[in-house]
Amino acid sequence: MLKVGLLGAGRIGQVHAVNIAGHARSTLVAVSDVVEGAAQSLAAKYGAQARSSDDILNDPAIDAVLVATSTDTHSDLIEKAVAAGKAVLCEKPVDLSLARAKACLAATKDSGQPVMIGFNRRFDPNFGAMQAALAAGEIGKAELLSITSFDPAPPPVSYIKVSGGLFRDMMIHDFDMANFMMGAPPVTVTAVGSAIVNPEIGEAGDVDTAVVTLTYADGRIAVIKNSRRAVYGYDQRVELLGSEGLLSAGNMLENTLSKSTVAGVSSAKPTYFFLERYMPAYVVEWNAFVTGVLDGTPLAVTLEDGISALAMAEAATLSAKTGAPVTLADL
Amino acid sequence: MLKVGLLGAGRIGQVHAVNIAGHARSTLVAVSDVVEGAAQSLAAKYGAQARSSDDILNDPAIDAVLVATSTDTHSDLIEKAVAAGKAVLCEKPVDLSLARAKACLAATKDSGQPVMIGFNRRFDPNFGAMQAALAAGEIGKAELLSITSFDPAPPPVSYIKVSGGLFRDMMIHDFDMANFMMGAPPVTVTAVGSAIVNPEIGEAGDVDTAVVTLTYADGRIAVIKNSRRAVYGYDQRVELLGSEGLLSAGNMLENTLSKSTVAGVSSAKPTYFFLERYMPAYVVEWNAFVTGVLDGTPLAVTLEDGISALAMAEAATLSAKTGAPVTLADL
Amino acid sequence: MLKVGLLGAGRIGQVHAVNIAGHARSTLVAVSDVVEGAAQSLAAKYGAQARSSDDILNDPAIDAVLVATSTDTHSDLIEKAVAAGKAVLCEKPVDLSLARAKACLAATKDSGQPVMIGFNRRFDPNFGAMQAALAAGEIGKAELLSITSFDPAPPPVSYIKVSGGLFRDMMIHDFDMANFMMGAPPVTVTAVGSAIVNPEIGEAGDVDTAVVTLTYADGRIAVIKNSRRAVYGYDQRVELLGSEGLLSAGNMLENTLSKSTVAGVSSAKPTYFFLERYMPAYVVEWNAFVTGVLDGTPLAVTLEDGISALAMAEAATLSAKTGAPVTLADL
Amino acid sequence: MLKVGLLGAGRIGQVHAVNIAGHARSTLVAVSDVVEGAAQSLAAKYGAQARSSDDILNDPAIDAVLVATSTDTHSDLIEKAVAAGKAVLCEKPVDLSLARAKACLAATKDSGQPVMIGFNRRFDPNFGAMQAALAAGEIGKAELLSITSFDPAPPPVSYIKVSGGLFRDMMIHDFDMANFMMGAPPVTVTAVGSAIVNPEIGEAGDVDTAVVTLTYADGRIAVIKNSRRAVYGYDQRVELLGSEGLLSAGNMLENTLSKSTVAGVSSAKPTYFFLERYMPAYVVEWNAFVTGVLDGTPLAVTLEDGISALAMAEAATLSAKTGAPVTLADL
Repeated sequence: MLKVGLLGAGRIGQVHAVNIAGHARSTLVAVSDVVEGAAQSLAAKYGAQARSSDDILNDPAIDAVLVATSTDTHSDLIEKAVAAGKAVLCEKPVDLSLARAKACLAATKDSGQPVMIGFNRRFDPNFGAMQAALAAGEIGKAELLSITSFDPAPPPVSYIKVSGGLFRDMMIHDFDMANFMMGAPPVTVTAVGSAIVNPEIGEAGDVDTAVVTLTYADGRIAVIKNSRRAVYGYDQRVELLGSEGLLSAGNMLENTLSKSTVAGVSSAKPTYFFLERYMPAYVVEWNAFVTGVLDGTPLAVTLEDGISALAMAEAATLSAKTGAPVTLADL
Repeated sequence: MLKVGLLGAGRIGQVHAVNIAGHARSTLVAVSDVVEGAAQSLAAKYGAQARSSDDILNDPAIDAVLVATSTDTHSDLIEKAVAAGKAVLCEKPVDLSLARAKACLAATKDSGQPVMIGFNRRFDPNFGAMQAALAAGEIGKAELLSITSFDPAPPPVSYIKVSGGLFRDMMIHDFDMANFMMGAPPVTVTAVGSAIVNPEIGEAGDVDTAVVTLTYADGRIAVIKNSRRAVYGYDQRVELLGSEGLLSAGNMLENTLSKSTVAGVSSAKPTYFFLERYMPAYVVEWNAFVTGVLDGTPLAVTLEDGISALAMAEAATLSAKTGAPVTLADL
Repeated sequence: MLKVGLLGAGRIGQVHAVNIAGHARSTLVAVSDVVEGAAQSLAAKYGAQARSSDDILNDPAIDAVLVATSTDTHSDLIEKAVAAGKAVLCEKPVDLSLARAKACLAATKDSGQPVMIGFNRRFDPNFGAMQAALAAGEIGKAELLSITSFDPAPPPVSYIKVSGGLFRDMMIHDFDMANFMMGAPPVTVTAVGSAIVNPEIGEAGDVDTAVVTLTYADGRIAVIKNSRRAVYGYDQRVELLGSEGLLSAGNMLENTLSKSTVAGVSSAKPTYFFLERYMPAYVVEWNAFVTGVLDGTPLAVTLEDGISALAMAEAATLSAKTGAPVTLADL
Repeated sequence: MLKVGLLGAGRIGQVHAVNIAGHARSTLVAVSDVVEGAAQSLAAKYGAQARSSDDILNDPAIDAVLVATSTDTHSDLIEKAVAAGKAVLCEKPVDLSLARAKACLAATKDSGQPVMIGFNRRFDPNFGAMQAALAAGEIGKAELLSITSFDPAPPPVSYIKVSGGLFRDMMIHDFDMANFMMGAPPVTVTAVGSAIVNPEIGEAGDVDTAVVTLTYADGRIAVIKNSRRAVYGYDQRVELLGSEGLLSAGNMLENTLSKSTVAGVSSAKPTYFFLERYMPAYVVEWNAFVTGVLDGTPLAVTLEDGISALAMAEAATLSAKTGAPVTLADL
């Protein structure tokens, strides 16, 4: 039984709390949050204790921590937790600074402690089935990958300003998805972007609509499309052309009802946002972490994976400014 | 907070236990089962007590019972629970005997105690959205209802022999679905059936494939198709033609992956069986019961609804034997 | 090269004219119609002659006739054409009177002349692919067939009065489809029907909404649903459950555009009516006739097939009146 | 009635011949081809004459010519036809040389003669409905366009060598589609490409897989994906995200049959190639030309449109070599 401390009792922390408590091989023993009341209320619901994060990190009875705090604390908490001998599942991104993330890796890689980064989409049943079909050779060799990832609505401009920008904040998921599917990082990253959804996002120095093209050493190509706004809901699709076929994974819909009238045929929208779409993925993710830690098997997403996606985000941010391709090895 | 005793710790009892414990307004306080170990193990998981069903029924601190025992005990348990002043949610069917079910209604109807029958499919988000769209007038007036309901595989013949037959055991869900959509019972029931999936089912006096046609006083028509075997999974669809359009609710699929190759395009099957398909429905169902009991609002499915479906099953059983239509009022 | 005379220059005659003229192995040489101008105008378009039907039937240079006249003339024209040594493709139904159709068969069956009945839906690429998949054993043995067939709008009541009724006029196509898929006629026919779309249809002694259940000697079951009105367009679907799977053939849609907005996802309706939906089927049908006649191979739909469907229509008409099943052998 | 001469009796010429002859307002009067027998055989089928292209161009009784010859003759034939006072519908591309195409425009633009370029996909009912929905404001303002265009199999390398390269030969259709949807040419063109399908295509100096990103003056973005090989058939899809929704137009499928078995659900592939997919589009295209010429209304696709797409192809060819974006105005 894995004894788990949860750092961060916000929206995503609450999702993790259910899964930690509900898993047959893990228990939620402690919760911390900068807002003390939030930790207390969440802890009470699952018979856990509300404690400070230092307390949790220093408690030898706790085996693992789940880091669901704000991004700027991730690297520090990973380092402290690893130093304290704990297994770590840390929400993405590792850090907004590639240099800081690399330092975090350097500081922890010889510890032997398991560190997993929470790229939840790898655990989505649809994308998981896709990667498995590819790995099983069902479409031959991959050639052209296409990722569509649209949020339902842009966040407030105040958030945009501290987010690290669309490529680090939003597209980082898609960079990891590309790595998941392609099994290797790209050679070059070419980005175009604009602030067409909301000009204020442009004034804040960011983009809200972007297309990134990735090239690979063996001639494969990937393309990622992002928009901060798809009024019909969370649009998350991946498509992969291979030498012997095409794999395509689509959205989860609110329901299967369709209505045919003189006006046409209408059906349900995609589920609204990531909590609705990826709730099953968080369950699978937690199971992957618990299994890896308790059974000593390799973790599905490593700190290196987190850094790889971050490097791609940095390259894309640069390319979107200059228009020119950025070679990843040059970063 | 509704204090709940669960009678029956089998497969469906376990599903209900999760939902009772997880609901914000209910607590699981006690569990009984004819297999004592089953009750103990389930109770332990949720911090409840394993007790006898008589103990539970006689405990004034318990507000409600969920009856998930074998069908032959339902009527008795409903009567006892109502007499003990408890609200009741009882799994379908009320009874295999229409006369016994009617006696149960007679014995309980003046009590004022809330009794709800667990026709889970009414709470399926797909069928729920369909009924809501109909009620909102989105396809005008209903004219022709069609229900497809196939199980993935037939149960053992030993089960068939005590099941009450396909119409009472399996199609009873579809009779209730017809009542849910049509808002009134039919006038006549005409059934044809055969044992084409497994001749041993025929030798046991039952059918495994059947079509039932229902006529309504105002000219509406409904048709229900059942098969005990659809090798591709649980096939649960409803379609309703109205004066201004068609509503159609389909299956939930295992995932959204599709694969295109020289051989064609392939995609996922429907989810395997009722636990996979209707898990969300059981959550909604429990919420409907808790809300109804605590807030004193009408329950979504009444004991009368259970009896109506049972009468239709009895009529269908008779019609399948004679070939002639059975007038429901004649039963 | 098959020299063809077309009897009837109405809507369906015009469809056939294009296909006769466009086929590599047939030529349209003559056209007749009760409205002389209609024959002249159609003949002119394809370099054919407008003649009387007697002239056409008596011209030894004409190899085949396509009968696209009103139903009451079909039997007579088939008999005359066969007597004149011509191959015949006659539009459905053979006749409204089962006795007359049987007499027509008796009068022609020893002639050796090829006579094909125009059940166009057998040649629809979707239904054709379904029958081929079944014949190839792709879903094992057929068990439960379901046919949905809705027209976009009811015809005028004046037409209803002379149509022979829904079962002979509209559902006859579906009876033939059942025969096409099941490969044998049913044993019993049970029908329910009502005039819920338009009460005037009921006053005219007909129904506009109907469900017919067919049972087969080996335990198979089929069900046919008809409505004279589906406001969203021509709804033509067939579904067949077998021991090893399900085949399902759906509608052709106007286009593949879908639109996702806050209001939901909308897409195109089915094509409007039989000319849009079955245009490709008429091409395939004509090719089947030409090939059969010129190469001496068996025709895809025989006069016997036409009579079988007509008998089922008569049985359904009777059953809808009495409510009781009608045994086909008793007719 | 438009009297039409057809220059070129090859595969696409034959498609046009049917449509010219079948249209109510046009007649096919003459056919030419470098292979004399091809012209004679096609002309005979439609009662036209086989003549030399000079004869056709010099015949004052001919109103319009359809140029379906090899690409290297297009510019010359357009100029000669316009000089001879004829309306012209010329197959795409105008020319492989942007300079030559511009010269053709310069030579003909003051003539007042209607010249239309055969970008058939604009007339596809699916894409046509999409553009109409956009124009009607159904998804607000366009923001992000995505075009997927895969051929079923690569042409012979011998063809590749004289084709002008993937961007001029294949993606030119998609450049025109972008112009059709976006209503303005892009500012920059950025291309990546590789020869991953067949290395011999790379040795011939071309690519077989490519992604092109287009940016627009107002911040809009478009992305085009091409592959010379999709083993499951011709894959032609367009998707457009707007401020108020998403439009998506998909493939035409061979049929609507689906099969559900233990192995999953399988359905039909897209139609095999452009003749199957775009046959309806060629009919609509010809009607647009005839209507424009006879009624004096603006043509749907102009010579300028042909040049715009060609310039984009040239820019993409250059960008794929350098990796850098190419500004269209710099060409």
